[in-house]
Amino acid sequence: MPTATAANAGAAGSSASVMAEQPRVVFTPSGRRGRFAPGTPILDAARSLGVDIDSVCGGRGLCGRCQVDQSTGTFSKHDIDSRPENLSPGNAIEARYAKKKGMQVGRRLSCQALLQGDVVIDVPPESQVHKQVVRKRAEARDFEIDPAIRLHYLEVREPDMASPSGDLERVLEALKEQWGIEDLECDLRVLQGLQKALRQGDWKITVAVHRGQVLTTAWPGFHDRAYGVAVDVGSTTIAVHLCNLSSGEILASAGRMNPQIRFGEDLMSRVSYVMMHPGGDEEMTVAVRGAIDALFAEVAGEAGIDPDDILNAVFVGNPVMHHLLLGIDPTELGGAPFALAANSAMTLWATELGLSKINRNARAYVLPCIAGHVGADTAGVILSENPHLSSEIMLVVDVGTNAEIVLGNKDRLLACSSPTGPAFEGAQITSGQRAAPGAIERVRIDPATLEPRFKVIGSDLWSDDPNFASETQKTGVTGICGSGIVEALAEMYLAGILKADGSVDGAMATRSPRVREDGRTFAYHLHDGPPEIFITQTDVRAIQLAKAALYAGARLLMDRLGIETLDRIVLAGAFGSHIDVKHAMVLGMIPDCDLQKVSSAGNAAGSGALIALLNQKARDDIEAVVRRVEKIETAVEPRFQEHFVGAMGIPHKSAPFPHLSAAVALPPRGGVASGESGRRRRRNRV
Amino acid sequence: MPTATAANAGAAGSSASVMAEQPRVVFTPSGRRGRFAPGTPILDAARSLGVDIDSVCGGRGLCGRCQVDQSTGTFSKHDIDSRPENLSPGNAIEARYAKKKGMQVGRRLSCQALLQGDVVIDVPPESQVHKQVVRKRAEARDFEIDPAIRLHYLEVREPDMASPSGDLERVLEALKEQWGIEDLECDLRVLQGLQKALRQGDWKITVAVHRGQVLTTAWPGFHDRAYGVAVDVGSTTIAVHLCNLSSGEILASAGRMNPQIRFGEDLMSRVSYVMMHPGGDEEMTVAVRGAIDALFAEVAGEAGIDPDDILNAVFVGNPVMHHLLLGIDPTELGGAPFALAANSAMTLWATELGLSKINRNARAYVLPCIAGHVGADTAGVILSENPHLSSEIMLVVDVGTNAEIVLGNKDRLLACSSPTGPAFEGAQITSGQRAAPGAIERVRIDPATLEPRFKVIGSDLWSDDPNFASETQKTGVTGICGSGIVEALAEMYLAGILKADGSVDGAMATRSPRVREDGRTFAYHLHDGPPEIFITQTDVRAIQLAKAALYAGARLLMDRLGIETLDRIVLAGAFGSHIDVKHAMVLGMIPDCDLQKVSSAGNAAGSGALIALLNQKARDDIEAVVRRVEKIETAVEPRFQEHFVGAMGIPHKSAPFPHLSAAVALPPRGGVASGESGRRRRRNRV
Repeated sequence: MPTATAANAGAAGSSASVMAEQPRVVFTPSGRRGRFAPGTPILDAARSLGVDIDSVCGGRGLCGRCQVDQSTGTFSKHDIDSRPENLSPGNAIEARYAKKKGMQVGRRLSCQALLQGDVVIDVPPESQVHKQVVRKRAEARDFEIDPAIRLHYLEVREPDMASPSGDLERVLEALKEQWGIEDLECDLRVLQGLQKALRQGDWKITVAVHRGQVLTTAWPGFHDRAYGVAVDVGSTTIAVHLCNLSSGEILASAGRMNPQIRFGEDLMSRVSYVMMHPGGDEEMTVAVRGAIDALFAEVAGEAGIDPDDILNAVFVGNPVMHHLLLGIDPTELGGAPFALAANSAMTLWATELGLSKINRNARAYVLPCIAGHVGADTAGVILSENPHLSSEIMLVVDVGTNAEIVLGNKDRLLACSSPTGPAFEGAQITSGQRAAPGAIERVRIDPATLEPRFKVIGSDLWSDDPNFASETQKTGVTGICGSGIVEALAEMYLAGILKADGSVDGAMATRSPRVREDGRTFAYHLHDGPPEIFITQTDVRAIQLAKAALYAGARLLMDRLGIETLDRIVLAGAFGSHIDVKHAMVLGMIPDCDLQKVSSAGNAAGSGALIALLNQKARDDIEAVVRRVEKIETAVEPRFQEHFVGAMGIPHKSAPFPHLSAAVALPPRGGVASGESGRRRRRNRV
Repeated sequence: MPTATAANAGAAGSSASVMAEQPRVVFTPSGRRGRFAPGTPILDAARSLGVDIDSVCGGRGLCGRCQVDQSTGTFSKHDIDSRPENLSPGNAIEARYAKKKGMQVGRRLSCQALLQGDVVIDVPPESQVHKQVVRKRAEARDFEIDPAIRLHYLEVREPDMASPSGDLERVLEALKEQWGIEDLECDLRVLQGLQKALRQGDWKITVAVHRGQVLTTAWPGFHDRAYGVAVDVGSTTIAVHLCNLSSGEILASAGRMNPQIRFGEDLMSRVSYVMMHPGGDEEMTVAVRGAIDALFAEVAGEAGIDPDDILNAVFVGNPVMHHLLLGIDPTELGGAPFALAANSAMTLWATELGLSKINRNARAYVLPCIAGHVGADTAGVILSENPHLSSEIMLVVDVGTNAEIVLGNKDRLLACSSPTGPAFEGAQITSGQRAAPGAIERVRIDPATLEPRFKVIGSDLWSDDPNFASETQKTGVTGICGSGIVEALAEMYLAGILKADGSVDGAMATRSPRVREDGRTFAYHLHDGPPEIFITQTDVRAIQLAKAALYAGARLLMDRLGIETLDRIVLAGAFGSHIDVKHAMVLGMIPDCDLQKVSSAGNAAGSGALIALLNQKARDDIEAVVRRVEKIETAVEPRFQEHFVGAMGIPHKSAPFPHLSAAVALPPRGGVASGESGRRRRRNRV
């Protein structure tokens, strides 16, 4: 190969005059520049200048990853006249590649294009090794693609009787010489097929290397398909994303119900199942692994790829899901002291998890757990939302049967779990249901008439829209989900139907038939049916318990951190994505915060899994962060009980909610308003 | 625990006077000494002085590994009066241990015996961690017991909600605090049972740690049974030794035919089988693994141990056996360039080799191969015979279907394989057979009468003994094995029946009916039968080819090393153990050497496996040695052909054999003797 001499490498003395005559190359957008001997491939020039250009084939014109554009014209800024003829014309290798795989007009393979004069070369984002993944949500941090699995095309020295050596050893030698990777281990299962691959590929193979440490796969010839799966093992739903490990592109996504549901709806009932049925943990392990395997087959089929090209899998899940996935009896998580079998992250073969719709040497990475109630899913949430990198104090809440709460900033991070119970998921609510088409998810109550209107999942129309009935004919109105009940309660409060202590104001029954007697208490009639949907006093109490637990957990962490105000709140999880922030705050689910700075992160745990799949350094990062997270066990914190009791009512009555007060017309603060006077005051303000 | 202050640790100033009053302890045989506070356990004193005392339980009086003797009396040499009362009296823990496991009178558990005055303490060899294994053969190097698997008893902190952590992490913490072992990984399969073990053992467990790096097993409470197996996978026989990993004791040994024999007698026919039968390699892999599993069960049964306590397995074997054990198609080894899939040593789970009569987390270690024809068995031979540590030039020969030849000393080591063919194993010989009861293994021919006498395997009597017939009634005389044919030929030569060029001298037929016409050539009638046993001219030619190959290989390496004489020869393998050195040298199988310095090493490959099993450092050593061994491929060395042709005759005719000439009455050197004159001359000297 031609000698590449970087001008900025400070070559001395005698070569200076030679260098002065050598053509210059300027790379954009990096701005790196140097002089190189005529005939130097652009890729070599880029490498010697540290310009980030991808390549799997090592400059052999096979992979097409190293494409660049020549920027032609005179660049006064660089003092360069980048004429088209200053680059060698396209050659047969490029023509072959373009014919086979297609290539944009003007693009060149930088391994084939040779320097003939001064040039300005633009490296498009897709040709960079460390491509940036731009996330849709403005507040989410972008990240670099730096997967744990990398492919390397190799030309391997043939065996030579004069100097005998193993085929593997010559592969490792090629990896060292051609890619600078040393000290690798090799899976036995790779070795079993290595000799055949080498001969089939005429001593050219592509290998997959895991974290620069282990040779995990080998294919004959050139192979450029490397995929990964990010798996969020939820108690209810398992979600899988299939990614291209080099582009970061999500090729397919699929989800299905966690089949463990037949052993118990929620986590505790599954742990109980194990306690009652010896071997029950194995049944559930088999079930969840089978579902994951089916999802792998599904996403591979959808994307039209061979599951054998799936080389890496990353898993998140709460501690019970984490243990059952790993084949660990979760019994200890069912009672104090809630001891995890292990909290460290784990790297192992996917086959150790009994998975088969994936390359048999694929590596699985399971994110670390934080504590007995704060699992790898929360680690994923942290990785997605980055409170540990934030200057602002962030509260990150993932609401499910338990609420996992993380509070802090780059200096200090605290985490706890708060037992919200399943009310937010629609369970234990009279007309409650899971978030599914037909479930009421938005509610508004007219403070004057006390008449409701609502939206159901699956339709964008409000229920008072003339077309509502016809548009929801298919789904019907089936019940109310978590976000619906939160809105309903907040609206009931704002309309004066709900008192600050959480009791449904029976006096309102005189104003509207919507408020009705229901045994010794009163209920609000949200929908005429069928089915009729009521919000009962019992429902209100269930939500009060749930939201008090959530609020108390957050307050407990704030106490520990010694703060009274939050800079930012992120609501993660499906429920967190659907609730209206303002209503949640009215109800006192979350502490006061500038409403502009409260956002929903969607499935942040899943996003964290995806980040860990696409960026290996993120794994080290989250492991380090999790080690320094201060774990708070709410069950042993007396202050938690105090906060819990104090948070049962509508909290802006007892705690200042300045941001909320500025944004929403709240009943005035002060002693608990009696229904009547509260209503009057409120009505005066409307 | 009391503070232990070693006098030689150089404690300064103010504590000097205190120290002067502290009791002294002298350990024998190390001679290490120090002063310690009264009440210091002897084990603690030993540790702070670096005295080598074993312990699995960490000083809790459970394992009994730390036993010592107090030497009482006045020791003027040490200026110490070691009175019995200077050690605390035996306590309840010692009494319990003695009752449960037995203890020699006078012995103390050094973890329980407390210093009360000046004492001399003797550490018996069996209480040392690094016990020496004394090998029977005088020339074999002893080695230390330092197994890859160590047991550690732990008291683990219970989970604490105030500071949540995983059970595994607290186990690792205990390993660090109680044993100074850090940065461990843990097998998932250990983790799956860890919580149960911890609770069953009331937070006391014993763990097995592999090479100080991986936690591979956990048992509730105290567990002191750790075994290992050394496996020699021969083409014909598989041999297994079961060892106690802490004492080095061999508890049981077993061997059985390699069931692959049904696919082909020798290596080449097995490789051919694979070439002819796709999937044949898998059949043979399954067969050999099944046999190994059966042997594991057999040795465990014989020793009365639980196979689950077998925690480590070490394997040696020639390249084809090595590949088939690992599940690698050996086809490439069947033809030039004889490329190994890999030559490096391998550490993996025994389960990856499909083995099940062993702990499911047991680690397997496979010694490195050297070249396409020089396998892990030769690495084992080197480890056993240590040519790489020798100042003398050593020739180590392992004779089988191929002869693996190693030559050199601590400065330089060469290895090659020479294609001797199966003649030395009795194959392709008219009356040949494997070494088994009934096979002729020793032969003497009276030079005067040309009458033979012989011994068969299974009897110590010569055939001319009156009791021979009755004693060999059971086995009979069935044929002649490799060592028998070598002796027969050497004796035929010494008796003048065989000429120096290898032809049977027909002229001798006139002297004795033992020499008979056999077609166009002559044969020697060794046994009247049944069955009649002849040594034919074809047999002589087969042995000539074999011994010429062996000799040529050795000479080739000597040329490479630039030497003409050898300091020492070691004959390894079953054949090497049975042949008479003198006869081998007469025949010219091996170069000339002082007969006193030619020895048989028996199954040195198996011994090497045993050493690697019991001493982890030996693994690193042999890997480093193998890397620097100069591999010579005889097939591409023109000099090999020259030596081979030159070695077909009886070599002391063409090459000087000064040592042999001094020891044996050889026919005089010079031109090839004609039968008649050669015989006469020889007879004159007898």
